[in-house]
Amino acid sequence: MSYIVEPVREDPRVARTREAVGRATLQVLAERGYAGFTVEAVADEARVARSTIYRHWPTRIALISDALDALNRQPRPDRDEVAGGARAKVEVLVTHLTEAFTDSLLSSCMPALVEAAEHEPEVAAFLHGYSATRRATLVRVLEAGIASGELPSHLDPELASVALAGAVAYYRTMTPEPLPTERAADLVTQVLGPP
Amino acid sequence: MSYIVEPVREDPRVARTREAVGRATLQVLAERGYAGFTVEAVADEARVARSTIYRHWPTRIALISDALDALNRQPRPDRDEVAGGARAKVEVLVTHLTEAFTDSLLSSCMPALVEAAEHEPEVAAFLHGYSATRRATLVRVLEAGIASGELPSHLDPELASVALAGAVAYYRTMTPEPLPTERAADLVTQVLGPP
Repeated sequence: MSYIVEPVREDPRVARTREAVGRATLQVLAERGYAGFTVEAVADEARVARSTIYRHWPTRIALISDALDALNRQPRPDRDEVAGGARAKVEVLVTHLTEAFTDSLLSSCMPALVEAAEHEPEVAAFLHGYSATRRATLVRVLEAGIASGELPSHLDPELASVALAGAVAYYRTMTPEPLPTERAADLVTQVLGPP
Repeated sequence: MSYIVEPVREDPRVARTREAVGRATLQVLAERGYAGFTVEAVADEARVARSTIYRHWPTRIALISDALDALNRQPRPDRDEVAGGARAKVEVLVTHLTEAFTDSLLSSCMPALVEAAEHEPEVAAFLHGYSATRRATLVRVLEAGIASGELPSHLDPELASVALAGAVAYYRTMTPEPLPTERAADLVTQVLGPP
């Protein structure tokens, strides 16, 4: 007996609702913080029934997690061939990160999550897990590039990935302007050395 | 006619009040966020009269700024000789940063400031100015080390300083544990290359 798994095709109406709820989730979170982030506010903002939200997203963390999954699709150069090899793959990921931290919808809710993580253990667990999962692709690309000899052997993939991701987050939160996307390659040079 | 400027010696009682108010400031900010950060709460926490606070610190930002100045004294290796030269100076500064981001009183108020900076222009102006001023010492040390040939010429002092400071801030906010002080030199190696 064999099971053939059909590719899941999302009903377009479901996909539209998911995106509207996702956008509303990030917007309410950015504007009101986690303390003011309620299902009622998200339902009003997305113009959907509260019951729809309760049915599909059982917790506030589920709403946030699904919103980030739906609206922040990360490239996967660890799976694909990229012309230019390991360094180019790092650049693809750091460029994507600068785009996410320039996008106001995605990046404006990060300070609210960081602040809530100080007081709410479930937010801390989500945020730390989310950033580790997203950063794992960068860690893998760095590991493979060091193993293949394309990247310098003194690099520690974990620390190097945090230097790159941390710089992008720092520009967004601790300086007046996010790092422009066209400077992603310059940032990569700080950690990988000159091309 | 000449003016002789006497070194200012702070009255010990004044110094004690300043420190108590500083500690209370950071504690209230960390616990209640900027929205709940009031002169009343700081006065109660520090056990000083509200009038004392209003007299010495005319605004909430003045309280925060003075608390960070009083409680987070940064080393100044740009002024002093340090055995080991430019690299050792960078390590002194990054080590200090890991200490500040491990200290719960200093680091716990940062997420509150980052969150408030999204909504309150005066907090954004303060936070961005403060981080630029503090990071300026690191930028100067990197510039001098590149100019002297001690550090690699491909480094951009501004970007490299943000990769270092951003990594320390990222560990504190986006992972379960801050970067341990004993790993500061490993972080420096990610940006400056091997010693």
